[in-house]
Amino acid sequence: MKLADLPTPALVADAETLTFNLDTMAEALPGRRMRPHVKAHKCTALARRQAALGHVGFTCATIRELEGLAAAGLGEDLLLANEVLDARRLGVLDARVTVAIDSDETLRAAVEGGVREVLIDVNVGLPRCGIAPEKAGALADRARAAGLEVRGVMGYEGHVMGEGDVDRRREATEASMVLLRQAHEDVGGDVVSAGGTCTYALNTAATEIQAGSYALMDRTFTYPDLPFRPSFWIHASVISVSEKFAVLDAGLKALSMDHGNPELDEGAGKVWFCSDEHTTFAPSKPVRPGDRARVWPMHVDPTVAKHERLHIASGDDVIETWEIDLRGW
Amino acid sequence: MKLADLPTPALVADAETLTFNLDTMAEALPGRRMRPHVKAHKCTALARRQAALGHVGFTCATIRELEGLAAAGLGEDLLLANEVLDARRLGVLDARVTVAIDSDETLRAAVEGGVREVLIDVNVGLPRCGIAPEKAGALADRARAAGLEVRGVMGYEGHVMGEGDVDRRREATEASMVLLRQAHEDVGGDVVSAGGTCTYALNTAATEIQAGSYALMDRTFTYPDLPFRPSFWIHASVISVSEKFAVLDAGLKALSMDHGNPELDEGAGKVWFCSDEHTTFAPSKPVRPGDRARVWPMHVDPTVAKHERLHIASGDDVIETWEIDLRGW
Repeated sequence: MKLADLPTPALVADAETLTFNLDTMAEALPGRRMRPHVKAHKCTALARRQAALGHVGFTCATIRELEGLAAAGLGEDLLLANEVLDARRLGVLDARVTVAIDSDETLRAAVEGGVREVLIDVNVGLPRCGIAPEKAGALADRARAAGLEVRGVMGYEGHVMGEGDVDRRREATEASMVLLRQAHEDVGGDVVSAGGTCTYALNTAATEIQAGSYALMDRTFTYPDLPFRPSFWIHASVISVSEKFAVLDAGLKALSMDHGNPELDEGAGKVWFCSDEHTTFAPSKPVRPGDRARVWPMHVDPTVAKHERLHIASGDDVIETWEIDLRGW
Repeated sequence: MKLADLPTPALVADAETLTFNLDTMAEALPGRRMRPHVKAHKCTALARRQAALGHVGFTCATIRELEGLAAAGLGEDLLLANEVLDARRLGVLDARVTVAIDSDETLRAAVEGGVREVLIDVNVGLPRCGIAPEKAGALADRARAAGLEVRGVMGYEGHVMGEGDVDRRREATEASMVLLRQAHEDVGGDVVSAGGTCTYALNTAATEIQAGSYALMDRTFTYPDLPFRPSFWIHASVISVSEKFAVLDAGLKALSMDHGNPELDEGAGKVWFCSDEHTTFAPSKPVRPGDRARVWPMHVDPTVAKHERLHIASGDDVIETWEIDLRGW
């Protein structure tokens, strides 16, 4: 099928750019040094590509993601890098499952759910999940006493990702990793899991990096020091043209706005606003109803989660279509 | 099932409030005076409730919504209040289908797609779809010459919905309807389709009102003059607790942020920020992992579109679960 024949709106990735991003990461962080985060793409077909490059362990944010990967035969080493209060769906999976814990309640949920392995989730500066570093060792002790295997620690330095300057980002990463190392000394185990796309080359403390966005790549995070390029867009049709503006058939239900308005191709025009099913823009050159446009959202993860399928394009051709099969919870 | 046992995050509506909203609208605009917009809830079970109250015609934003309603036997009078360049999936539906057109291209798409009936979509002030009012008559003439039945006009005064003052909202609505009436005189036909939840009682020019949000009700639009009350929320679990904040398991993938941060129940705490799968908040009183919270998103439509199911609650009980079966395109 030609891109021009694809029903719109449609989530599309450029095959060449996607491959470049995947290969670049696999070269920088081969094999188990990378534990790809599937929350960014929610697509077992893409996870399969990552596994084929040697990344056989995966990071997940939801139980549904683990279930899907396990069912697809990708369950060699799955980490739920998130807290859950009911782990029963994890305990029955035909996969190696490790879950993050940061409290006695999540510890108990792991035990009661039949999960055997855990990481101690440590707060390294992002105001989100994770236990205070100085309390990590005691939680690990209680986990072991409860019969759990504590594989090590995780700590996501998410608060540094928005720092565009690479030196300041490195410093902030190192400050976070001082905390994680301190916790790791108390906790023990082989695993220090941390990092993301923006710190994949800066975080030298982690034994494995949990990057996710790099494959499709957030437009928000195209910093000069990062080699990854946005590989995905929303393919849209011009459905209405007025004197000063035109309207595309992709809106809030097709793309995420939490990091600001999407952009169009260089020189195509300026986005005014998005509504539920529309993007109104000022075209830079005359357009007609039926013309196609590429809409570039700022943020990968919540955009992908709005779509059922990811179309892979090479030039003007759609060469493959992958299911976004890990959505929901 | 008890609400406390529902896996989280989950989209929940309060049965009583939902019924109140539906009944209130049916009393104000009985039968065909209301053409409920299903884009707000994307749920045939909810549409069935609206049809049972006498609203047998529906407004849609996507072809998928028409397909779902037609398959559910709710195809007595379906309006696609949106422009499409490929109407072939509409032409084959076992339903009465009317589509909006605002250009020769969308006119041609209707003809080629086998659609027989159209409305002329008129721009009444919102910078989105719709032909200029003075050009509507000529487009209607060309549509009739092409063999289409022109049922009338539509014109959505979406730009007035954000006006909290009812008098100014009424004035702005009337200004828009002057334009729509002018177009209607040139176009002819029985139908003048317009309006929304915030103008349902103000728009006296329209023969039918296209309101959608009123059933679940946008928290953004709880103006003093509107009787409808937010009836839906995201049921979430506290998964992590730190000294100054706590974390819920509902984030950008479970709720829409285009109208700002969600809110918690009065007195429960203050939302700091949402990330992909989390909401970080400052609790007003001590919380523990496993506690439940209600997260109230600002905007109905894009929030509902993120969920597979809508749970209907009465008190602490989940009494029904409806599929959100009209998602996608």
